[in-house]
Amino acid sequence: MSTPQAENITMSAGGRYSLATAGARDVIDGATKLVVRAIGEVPVAAVDGVFTMSDMGCADGGTSLGMVRTAIGAVRERFGRAAVKVVYADQPRNDFNALARIVHGLGGFDGYLEEFDGVFPLFSATSFYRAIVPPGGLHLGFSATAMHWLSGKPGDLAAHVHAVGAVGDEREKFAAQARADWQTILLRRAEELAPGGQLVLVVFCMDERGRYLGNTGGVNMFARFNALWRGFVEEGAVTEGEYRAMTLPQFYRTVEEFRAPFEGEGAAARAGLELLEMETRVVPCPFAADFKMHGDADKFATAYIPTLRTWSESVFYGALSTARAGGERRAIVDNFYRAYGDEVRNHPDGHAMDYVHAYMRIRKTR
Amino acid sequence: MSTPQAENITMSAGGRYSLATAGARDVIDGATKLVVRAIGEVPVAAVDGVFTMSDMGCADGGTSLGMVRTAIGAVRERFGRAAVKVVYADQPRNDFNALARIVHGLGGFDGYLEEFDGVFPLFSATSFYRAIVPPGGLHLGFSATAMHWLSGKPGDLAAHVHAVGAVGDEREKFAAQARADWQTILLRRAEELAPGGQLVLVVFCMDERGRYLGNTGGVNMFARFNALWRGFVEEGAVTEGEYRAMTLPQFYRTVEEFRAPFEGEGAAARAGLELLEMETRVVPCPFAADFKMHGDADKFATAYIPTLRTWSESVFYGALSTARAGGERRAIVDNFYRAYGDEVRNHPDGHAMDYVHAYMRIRKTR
Repeated sequence: MSTPQAENITMSAGGRYSLATAGARDVIDGATKLVVRAIGEVPVAAVDGVFTMSDMGCADGGTSLGMVRTAIGAVRERFGRAAVKVVYADQPRNDFNALARIVHGLGGFDGYLEEFDGVFPLFSATSFYRAIVPPGGLHLGFSATAMHWLSGKPGDLAAHVHAVGAVGDEREKFAAQARADWQTILLRRAEELAPGGQLVLVVFCMDERGRYLGNTGGVNMFARFNALWRGFVEEGAVTEGEYRAMTLPQFYRTVEEFRAPFEGEGAAARAGLELLEMETRVVPCPFAADFKMHGDADKFATAYIPTLRTWSESVFYGALSTARAGGERRAIVDNFYRAYGDEVRNHPDGHAMDYVHAYMRIRKTR
Repeated sequence: MSTPQAENITMSAGGRYSLATAGARDVIDGATKLVVRAIGEVPVAAVDGVFTMSDMGCADGGTSLGMVRTAIGAVRERFGRAAVKVVYADQPRNDFNALARIVHGLGGFDGYLEEFDGVFPLFSATSFYRAIVPPGGLHLGFSATAMHWLSGKPGDLAAHVHAVGAVGDEREKFAAQARADWQTILLRRAEELAPGGQLVLVVFCMDERGRYLGNTGGVNMFARFNALWRGFVEEGAVTEGEYRAMTLPQFYRTVEEFRAPFEGEGAAARAGLELLEMETRVVPCPFAADFKMHGDADKFATAYIPTLRTWSESVFYGALSTARAGGERRAIVDNFYRAYGDEVRNHPDGHAMDYVHAYMRIRKTR
């Protein structure tokens, strides 16, 4: 089975994802109250000895360790001695070795398995565009900072690296793909969920004020990505075709777009899903916050660039022609992040990868 | 949670395990009839929409693809549209990346996911010395060529690399560990199994005629391992301490030892496990069989050594002092297999890693 997501997009391997993404952990920690609320509303009768939760788009699992620990505690409080299955899911090219080691306490992060009996971590390489667990067996589905990845790329953008910079027909193609994908994500979850089961989904968005990841008032991160990458074409470092191929298969939906399938005769509503609450939040970039304290531009750039790199590197690399020698592709990617780093070093003010998410809680009503 | 198995023992990574172990696949294919028989006896009432099977000690999953495909077919025949969960389990340092890719069809092996709807592969990094799935949820537990690995090493052997060459107190320590470990393995499975669920366990043994892996009438593989490794001490390539540290944490149980916990007031009997059938089988070494056809000693050695290497290399490597530079440890291990290969090249007759297993089928009666 090939995954419907673009196959070669991966988060950084070897546990580096979690080390470089303190902000992603902050985002998840901020969702933990919703997780506890969700668990508190799952009907006791829906859990017959085993409570099943999932973490979709888990990467190496390091950023959600604290959330999972709290969730298990909440399950035990409400459902007594119920066994807990924690299903970690990501695509087949995810670093499952890092995931297994981090969850089992060999990765240098504080795990939760020592604290509880009867907890069963399981890993799945099934994309969230398919059902990950059998029908009706899921009590809590969780996902953070993952469902902005589309199931495929609706096309290459002529003049930008991300749909936030697209206009007209190009933008509409991405928006249409994002609508279809959101519906697919919700319908697969509706199959998985037990009656009364809940979802807590934290998804990158364009908020009510037009803000999105790396664009919250200062420098626009994607505009800088695009300008630097365009500059590589002008210098002759990459070709026009490689420039265009560097199109992130992502879309930042608005709250209206998230809400649509739950309204009226929308597909999610018909499948028995109810949107209980939704709010947008900005979680500040921890590296920019540190910079405000220490004021050292070099230190800021050194800490900041790896967090951009975790999620974008494999896409830049994949855009480069395979006719190039492997070492050459790697060197171009290194040069790209070096150029971004130099820019931050020389003009640090305004750089920040603030996270802008919609936090949603959803219930399966029947 | 640290795994109770020796942590640094791993099968070869990157899919090489399955490529180098055609014999291990033959062993599993030979167990498929037992798997189908087991599925045919699981009570229909025990399966409420989801059939759960496990493959314990799966390594990269390549050797069991055919068995799992047949098992899913048998489940669908008996239980209709039941969803099938296939839980692949191995220790946290297993190559889960290779496993995920092979199972999801990205590893160059023929998978089974394209053929069936409603099949949910899941991966677990929990050792078979612990419960891998929640109580009462398992319908078929399978394991091949894995449960000879002890939960720990009862000591270093003074004059051999494997318990097959131990005598007296040294041997008894390994036998006692093997008894305790077999009981633990069975009790954890008794917890996991649904009433009427079954196990098909294929475990390396010492058979009724005293044969065991690599010792079926010709050259004794472990005796050669030991002689060559001893020779490395005499040449000054490895120290006496490193010689002793190379003690495989394995034991080849006899049929009497396998049967004991099922008899009378044995622990497995008290836990509701019944041994339905057991037989020992010798599966011939495919590389020695090829050599009989082609007669080319060099070709034989080139094909044969990697299959020994898959399961023994990490133990040799781990026995070498960490005070040595990393490259030096690797070089010694390379030299060791080169020496074994030279021996096979020069005197190919009688070399064969024939597999000697006990095949067991076990039922949870209540």
